[in-house]
Amino acid sequence: MASIFTKIINGEIPCYKIAEDDNFFAFLDINPNAKGHTLCIPKKEVDKIMDLDEETYLGLMAFSRKIGRAIEATIDCKRVGITVIGLEVPHVHVHLIPLNEMKEATFQYKVSLSKQDFESIAAKIRSKIE
Amino acid sequence: MASIFTKIINGEIPCYKIAEDDNFFAFLDINPNAKGHTLCIPKKEVDKIMDLDEETYLGLMAFSRKIGRAIEATIDCKRVGITVIGLEVPHVHVHLIPLNEMKEATFQYKVSLSKQDFESIAAKIRSKIE
Repeated sequence: MASIFTKIINGEIPCYKIAEDDNFFAFLDINPNAKGHTLCIPKKEVDKIMDLDEETYLGLMAFSRKIGRAIEATIDCKRVGITVIGLEVPHVHVHLIPLNEMKEATFQYKVSLSKQDFESIAAKIRSKIE
Repeated sequence: MASIFTKIINGEIPCYKIAEDDNFFAFLDINPNAKGHTLCIPKKEVDKIMDLDEETYLGLMAFSRKIGRAIEATIDCKRVGITVIGLEVPHVHVHLIPLNEMKEATFQYKVSLSKQDFESIAAKIRSKIE
């Protein structure tokens, strides 16, 4: 069965899209730790990050760097952090999280944003991708 | 002033070393979220991950993958996660964390290990690096 992320890639589930290329896809986390929290995923559906072949893994990391730099240029934060956990959705995803405080990296605090907030943030990040 | 991690690389502060090459260094986190929690760092002292030049960033990620796969082959865990935060030590470091539960990714729970535990874990991980 297709993962929820494959359904997002295929447009079966809507998302606030940030970027897409042949192999990777980025969109805003709908339950964000902080404003601008973004997920980067490979289109290839693999469960564990360490099981990705090296080429796909490095491609995902290069893609995440490009998006992370755009987030850092957009959102007022000390830095953008990276987290890969994956205990819930069995499809590799890189969290890019704008950090001002440690709590934003713990996944135990969430921020509430409106549809308009998400759309505005996504547009701003997209405009900063180099 | 040299960061605490540069002092570790230079041998001025002891560590449980996992691996080293010309550009990168890996050692056990002394205050681990879980048994086998490892830090991978570039020898180049840069504060923020998104400020690393792309070559060093991708080199660090490839190095981290190699170490992460060795950890996953050594430690009884569901998967190895990746976290980059960096709000405390201004020298890029990639956390590789063996995960069985979400709490191990939050940095709010720590495990206590003896010197003998650390030495034994480090030796086992080292033996699994491909």
